[in-house]
Parts: sequence; C-alpha cells; structure tokens
Amino acid sequence: MSVPLPTIDQIRDAAARIAPHAIVTPVLRNAELDALAGAQLYFKCENLQRGGAFKFRGACNAVWSLSDEEAARGVVTHSSGNHGNALAMAAATRGIAAHVVVPEGAVRAKLEAIEKAGAILHRCAPTIAAREAKAAEVQQATGATLVHPYADTRVMAGQGSLVAELLAQSQGLDAIMTPVGGGGLSAGCSIAAHGLDPSIAMYGAEPAGADDAVQSLARGARIDHFTPDTVCDGLRTLIGEPNFHALREHQVEIITVSDEESIQAMRLLWQTLKLVVEVSSATVLAAVLKQRDRFAGRRVGLVLTGGNVDIDALPW
Amino acid sequence: MSVPLPTIDQIRDAAARIAPHAIVTPVLRNAELDALAGAQLYFKCENLQRGGAFKFRGACNAVWSLSDEEAARGVVTHSSGNHGNALAMAAATRGIAAHVVVPEGAVRAKLEAIEKAGAILHRCAPTIAAREAKAAEVQQATGATLVHPYADTRVMAGQGSLVAELLAQSQGLDAIMTPVGGGGLSAGCSIAAHGLDPSIAMYGAEPAGADDAVQSLARGARIDHFTPDTVCDGLRTLIGEPNFHALREHQVEIITVSDEESIQAMRLLWQTLKLVVEVSSATVLAAVLKQRDRFAGRRVGLVLTGGNVDIDALPW
Repeated sequence: MSVPLPTIDQIRDAAARIAPHAIVTPVLRNAELDALAGAQLYFKCENLQRGGAFKFRGACNAVWSLSDEEAARGVVTHSSGNHGNALAMAAATRGIAAHVVVPEGAVRAKLEAIEKAGAILHRCAPTIAAREAKAAEVQQATGATLVHPYADTRVMAGQGSLVAELLAQSQGLDAIMTPVGGGGLSAGCSIAAHGLDPSIAMYGAEPAGADDAVQSLARGARIDHFTPDTVCDGLRTLIGEPNFHALREHQVEIITVSDEESIQAMRLLWQTLKLVVEVSSATVLAAVLKQRDRFAGRRVGLVLTGGNVDIDALPW
Repeated sequence: MSVPLPTIDQIRDAAARIAPHAIVTPVLRNAELDALAGAQLYFKCENLQRGGAFKFRGACNAVWSLSDEEAARGVVTHSSGNHGNALAMAAATRGIAAHVVVPEGAVRAKLEAIEKAGAILHRCAPTIAAREAKAAEVQQATGATLVHPYADTRVMAGQGSLVAELLAQSQGLDAIMTPVGGGGLSAGCSIAAHGLDPSIAMYGAEPAGADDAVQSLARGARIDHFTPDTVCDGLRTLIGEPNFHALREHQVEIITVSDEESIQAMRLLWQTLKLVVEVSSATVLAAVLKQRDRFAGRRVGLVLTGGNVDIDALPW
C-alpha cells in the first residue's frame, strides 16, 4: 500500500484546515422515515456542501495542505464528476490553478460546471490508461500536484471531517453508513468514527451492479478488474487499494442494494426529507430499509453524499 | 378587526410553546445565488419543518395554547392544504382530535396525508360558504375550537417564531421577504422582526395572478372579491382582515412576480440549493432577482415556506 491511511490527528487537522471554506452541513431527522426504518436516523446532508457534494472536503484539505511553493504550481486530477468540480472550487479558494483531465464523451453540463468553477480542462480518450497518461503529462508540464479522487491521504482525511460534525450534531451514534464507490469517504469516516468512539459500527452501501468492495472483502483481496453496471453514477469506481485496507481494518460491513431499491429510496428522500439527492446517496437509506431488523432501535447516521442531479432526467 | 394581531411577547411565548415539537430549521447560504442576486441571501428552510411547511408552527401554537378542557374537545379547521395537515400533526402531539373540513374534489394525496396524520375528515361542497358552514356544524357538534389558517392570533404568533430563529442564525439582516397568501406568515414575521429590530425592511412576494394584497394596499382597503389565477397553489387565498392591517402597519412592500418567474426560481432552488421547494416558496427568490437593484449589497432573509410538491408533476 503506497498511499498511507490518514490518522485521527490528520483528520482533526483537516477539519480545522477546511473550516474557513467548507459548510458545516445540517443533520436532519424525520419522524416518518424513523417510523419506516424502526430506527433513529440522522441524515448528514452533504448535498448541501459547497459544490453540492462531500467531495469539497477532501479537495479543500488537499489544496490547503500544499506548501506555498507547491500550491503555486497548481493541482491536477482526472475526474469529470463531483471530485473534478470540487477540486476546481477548492483551488479557487486559494487562487491557484486547477487542471482537470476529462474523457471525451463526458456529460457537457458537468464539464461546463467545472470550467465555470475556474479549472483548465484537458481532454483525453475515455480509458483509464489515457486519463492517467494525460494527468502525468500535465503534471510534468506544469509541476502541478496530483490529487486523486479517493486513493489520497489528504482526500480521505478531508472526507473524514464530516464524522466529527455528525457525532457532535447527533450526540452520539450506534452506527454510521456511507455509500461505497472508490472508498475515500468510507475510509475517512471509519478512521474518524473509531478515533472518536471505537464502539460505532461502520456500514457501507454498494449497488449490486458495482459490488466490487463486497467481493474484494469476501475473498480478502482487492478486485481490480470489474465492469460496473448501475444507475448510481457516483459509485461506478473500483475501490482503491488503501481504501480497501481501511475497510478491512475497520470491519466495515457492506450491504448491497438493487438499482430499483436505490431509486425508490431516492424518491422517498425527495418527498419526505425535501432534499434533492443523487441516486448514489440514496443507497444508504435503501440499505437501512432492506435490512430493517439489523438497524431496529439503533441510532444510525446516514451520509447523503451529494445532490448533483439532472432534474430533467429523473430515474423514476 | 375582530381578530387581534399578536404582540412580540405572544410571539416569544409561541416560540417557547412549540419548541418541544417544532424543528429549528436550518438557514442555508449559497455563493452562486448570492452572485446572481448581488446580495447576501439567507434562506430559512421551512420546507424542512415538520409536515414540510411553516404551517406547523402556527397550528402547534394554537393547539398548545388551549386549556386542558378546550383541548379535550379537539380542534377544527377548513383547509385541504398544508394547514389542514399541520393541524392534524399538531393535534397528534397533544393527543387530541383534529377535524378537517375538505371540499369535494380536493387532491386525494393531500387528503390521505391529512388522514394519515390522524385527522377526521369532513367533506363539503367546494365553496367558501359550504366550508364555513360545515366547520360551524362540526364546532357545534363537538365543541372543537376553530383554528383558522391565517386570520388567527395564535397562528400568526406561531408563524412569527421563525423570525427570531432566522435573525439569530444570520447575525442580523437588512430585509426579510416572505410569500404572501392569506398573510398569516407575513403578519407574524413583520411583528416579530420589528419587535426585535425596527430597522428591518419587510417585503412580500405575490403572484401577479393573485395580487389582491398589492391591490388592497394600493387602494387602502382590503379586496374581498377576487378570483386568483396562478400556479402557486399555496397563495391562492385572499389576504385576511387582520393580516391586511398588519401589512399596512409594518409597511410591508409587495413585489409581484409572474408564474414563469416563480417556476424558473423554483428550478434554480432545486438545482443550486438542492432543496425540494414548492413553487409558492420560490416567489421570494423570483422577487429578489427581478428587483436586483433594490436588494443589491443587502443581507436579505428569504423564507422558503414549504416543500410539499407532487414530484411526478413538476411545472417545468
């Protein structure tokens, strides 16, 4: 594992570092959803974070962790989704350049948002190899620091900062559940939660069509070839190497949900909680409702990761 | 004016009375919307209130203002919308009966929600005369206390409670804007705002197709015959008599907006603020964007009144 996991102290530092820029997102409760689940649910609303997703935390911590000299050369990443946008916004808070490598065929609206946030776009072929090659090329040409979307210590530490807020806002929890994609959120949150209260049970929600984390945990080694097939566009990434180790170390139990279950849960969140959330975020509610007995009577924190949805193309 | 306006002390009492039951809703800010408006906008998210609308505040204050003897006989209202639902939920917090008179032809989903909240429905013909007659009949038969949706001192006091929260959450404001329908919210908020800080300028937003408040203020007397024509279903009521006097006394300036402007603002709130809000709520943002010069550079509180939307029939 070449990328070290963050420590609880690094997560605390991250929280302090991003405080001037990030939003302390609210935690919402809802009597109707509690009754449905038979549990006390605490929704951490990262869809209300800057840029509409938790990704701003990790990107912001990475940007403000750089020395002045490093910062002057900018940052680079390959992501056409929420992380690209978050890195662009984070770079803007420090007034430095952000280079974002995007594959041909990426959603135009997302690219426009990234450009609007001030990033320089670099196009490449839509393969992982082409993205990594282009990012390396930009790094060499500019001296920019690579900020990986999830396999990055500073990014994981930034994501973990939300757990300290959640625990303070809810006066303690029995369990916390996050969606699992690349695993940056799950890793950061697990380290933060157990650093503050080792008794908290950590859970992940993964789409059945992208269950590489479940399979990796079952066989005890990370799967690195897998073609995800799910409507949850934010969770199509494979779990990262350091992230996989964090999930094992912190005994994160993963519950898989069907796309249909996630879409129904998304609808329920819109109608009941009055929040615009992505289908990827809704996996956590789908998982709690699917395994009702497991969560009955417990205080469960659910991380609603983002709200960047095309409201003209809703999945129901 | 037979119904007295609440005093600031009654609003303070209301805030304390509903505190065990109501949610202290978050105030959200958004850099993108601030830039669009050229102002500092503070969104008071009453769509995140219990029942999905600010109406719970007034209904809850009315229910808990009753003596034990009065409470034992229940409460009654005529409203198939958010107030009927709010009164049902408020009555449930005290374990008393709620009677809700609903016109034939009311939206089935809304009626189901009111019944689910525990109310007894009473059907009548879809005219104001029939609704009032049926409510009077229920009152006589049961001894229940009438809780009018807006022309009621306790209801206005309850709605006003949100302003004290908003001012504390925003560290002071130059202006506050609410939508204007029956005027219970606007009256309560104006009295609360000026009781706490007389320098705050009060604004209302009214659909052009339901501008009876604007017309009433212009001619100095309340219009009581008017057929509203607007997509803003929460604002189709005529302004109440005591409410009209409150608006005059507190020099509430009303800005009218077209349905098209409200629908565009609603879309913007969904996409940018990541909140499910009703089109009636979006009138306040539409008004600020329409009169950009008037609000430039000011700290403006905007009350997002509710989020009870049929997500299968969006107006865009």
